[in-house]
Amino acid sequence: MKVITLLTDFGLSDGYPGIMKGVILGISPDVQIVDLSHSISPQNVREGALVLRRSYRYFPAGSIHVAVVDPGVGTSRRPIAAQIGDHIFVGPDNGLFSHVTQDARDESRPVNVFHLNNPQYWLPKVSNVFHGRDVFAPAAAHIANGVALNQVGQPITDPVLFTVNKPERIAKGWKGEISSIDHFGNLSTNIPKSSISKDAPVEIAGRVIHTLAQAYGDRKPGELVALFDSSGFLSVSVVNGSAANELGATIGDTVLTYSA
Amino acid sequence: MKVITLLTDFGLSDGYPGIMKGVILGISPDVQIVDLSHSISPQNVREGALVLRRSYRYFPAGSIHVAVVDPGVGTSRRPIAAQIGDHIFVGPDNGLFSHVTQDARDESRPVNVFHLNNPQYWLPKVSNVFHGRDVFAPAAAHIANGVALNQVGQPITDPVLFTVNKPERIAKGWKGEISSIDHFGNLSTNIPKSSISKDAPVEIAGRVIHTLAQAYGDRKPGELVALFDSSGFLSVSVVNGSAANELGATIGDTVLTYSA
Amino acid sequence: MKVITLLTDFGLSDGYPGIMKGVILGISPDVQIVDLSHSISPQNVREGALVLRRSYRYFPAGSIHVAVVDPGVGTSRRPIAAQIGDHIFVGPDNGLFSHVTQDARDESRPVNVFHLNNPQYWLPKVSNVFHGRDVFAPAAAHIANGVALNQVGQPITDPVLFTVNKPERIAKGWKGEISSIDHFGNLSTNIPKSSISKDAPVEIAGRVIHTLAQAYGDRKPGELVALFDSSGFLSVSVVNGSAANELGATIGDTVLTYSA
Repeated sequence: MKVITLLTDFGLSDGYPGIMKGVILGISPDVQIVDLSHSISPQNVREGALVLRRSYRYFPAGSIHVAVVDPGVGTSRRPIAAQIGDHIFVGPDNGLFSHVTQDARDESRPVNVFHLNNPQYWLPKVSNVFHGRDVFAPAAAHIANGVALNQVGQPITDPVLFTVNKPERIAKGWKGEISSIDHFGNLSTNIPKSSISKDAPVEIAGRVIHTLAQAYGDRKPGELVALFDSSGFLSVSVVNGSAANELGATIGDTVLTYSA
Repeated sequence: MKVITLLTDFGLSDGYPGIMKGVILGISPDVQIVDLSHSISPQNVREGALVLRRSYRYFPAGSIHVAVVDPGVGTSRRPIAAQIGDHIFVGPDNGLFSHVTQDARDESRPVNVFHLNNPQYWLPKVSNVFHGRDVFAPAAAHIANGVALNQVGQPITDPVLFTVNKPERIAKGWKGEISSIDHFGNLSTNIPKSSISKDAPVEIAGRVIHTLAQAYGDRKPGELVALFDSSGFLSVSVVNGSAANELGATIGDTVLTYSA
Repeated sequence: MKVITLLTDFGLSDGYPGIMKGVILGISPDVQIVDLSHSISPQNVREGALVLRRSYRYFPAGSIHVAVVDPGVGTSRRPIAAQIGDHIFVGPDNGLFSHVTQDARDESRPVNVFHLNNPQYWLPKVSNVFHGRDVFAPAAAHIANGVALNQVGQPITDPVLFTVNKPERIAKGWKGEISSIDHFGNLSTNIPKSSISKDAPVEIAGRVIHTLAQAYGDRKPGELVALFDSSGFLSVSVVNGSAANELGATIGDTVLTYSA
């Protein structure tokens, strides 16, 4: 049974994600549909790209990930599908797949991208405001049914990719940034575990955390801690609290670590 | 595989939609259950009715749509099921199905309504506060299993229907209203595409929009635009912003269009 | 087809519940996964325990309920699975299953608890911050595939259980407390239907409600009413409004009923 995941900025009030599922089930009745998130901040392609990266590799090989954060819907921006290693991604060509593409390149996995320009695999009537329903959901469902990517579209070699910021070497260690803030107020950075030694001090918003914690529960409630997040990046948290609130931190803020 | 959709005002915190799914799966283990929305404003039957109309036709023929926005639960208001064209609707008799009924009549599709008064298809114990669990979910699951509507209830001819406001002809064009506001702050009206010419100016909240846009991305971020929403109705948006916030608009506000 | 339910405090923005589903479907592709709630207040084990109790018995026998509200993740707190009557519960050993255990004991249903210490049924790599993904989801999926609880772990007899507050006999009736507040602002208490007579006055926050209502719709919008909630406990509501807001009520507040 094939899995199709959905990631959008549509919210959960208006029925839009449900409509996409209706379209998918009309074409491919036996798929398993899984919501990744429908609460990406409106039009925030970078946020969507990060949630995708965090998630996709935990799905079975052959899963199809439909991502729709799409301020350019109805314009000349292309709808695309990308085969990246064992996974297929479907969505607008606006950078949403930058992180998963970068990861694949870092790990030497193949990336093949297609322009979804075959209207045979769209809904008969296509609006200019909801390609999640009219183009991406039906294309993904046909792909789940076994239609090859080169049938739903034509190969392209110039997908839109934004630059993935990597941490910078500095005299005493690394200079990184906050890349995402989760529901708990945990601050994830772009500094990977491989870059830091266990007793590295971490500096953020003028505060210094002297040693890394192994787990939230190793420290007292309310304490500011640095540890590795579930994707293996350095992160900063408040035990049973919100580091985002405590530090007034936002995406892009500098984080320093003084590793050997 | 049958599809059952759920639309409620239960929210996502308390487990209520999950409980309905448990009841359904206990009776009909192989259905595909899809959430339309559980974030309808509390007791807002009209809002629920609009989300239903927007959504149901994208589901496969034979889908069963369970809708529970039900301030009269436990009183004498009837539980009903309605066969409307190829779809079945299950919920309280309080107007929730007004829009889908009106649409069916406009398109000459048959509408057959039944009073769900056969307790054989309810849970054994029925509370006065949660018919979503005790009456509607089990009835829908039995219907998904093939039980005919005239077995789960008796035909009725007087379902509660509220009036669906239609736009009014005025000297220079049409006078309509805001019928819904979505997660992005987009303002949908009740003025259909068929009523307006392409270069029709649109007036809302004292602001005039001189020409229609084809897509959000055709205009600059922050610009107020008029275009057609995904259901084919005139709508007003702010590119990458919220028209609802920008205009302080609410449901029912007047929208004028000066079409030939 | 087996059912796995999920209850967490992860929220719906970051992809965490979706990731758990990906892990489950990779191991057990045909399960039906149902969300109970991902909006438990962060680290609020007691709130999660109550939503679990309210929900689980509406699922088919053999369902597996994965609950992750887990401030102690990565510390020495044990991961457990519990067979309680016909249902299986999987999560951290921190009291999350106190209510379902208490209910089972009250009803003389067997409770058998296992320490999930067999890494064969975890993901190969286990983080210190996301056992929902690395331990609980894979263990539940293997259990859904038929692996016995005594294979995924070893029997234990000392699970962490918090005390479930029961109402107290007072001269004129019962003294209970608000145990939960739902999305609508309804206040559920720990006073069961069996303890009260139909015309019992109810006192809360200095307000007295003289008789019980049968249903919300029996009274006027805005009226403060006492009635039985969907789990059979005394509750206090405002018709088409929020009792929580109206009374400024919080969990643990005293509720009195003057029953014979």
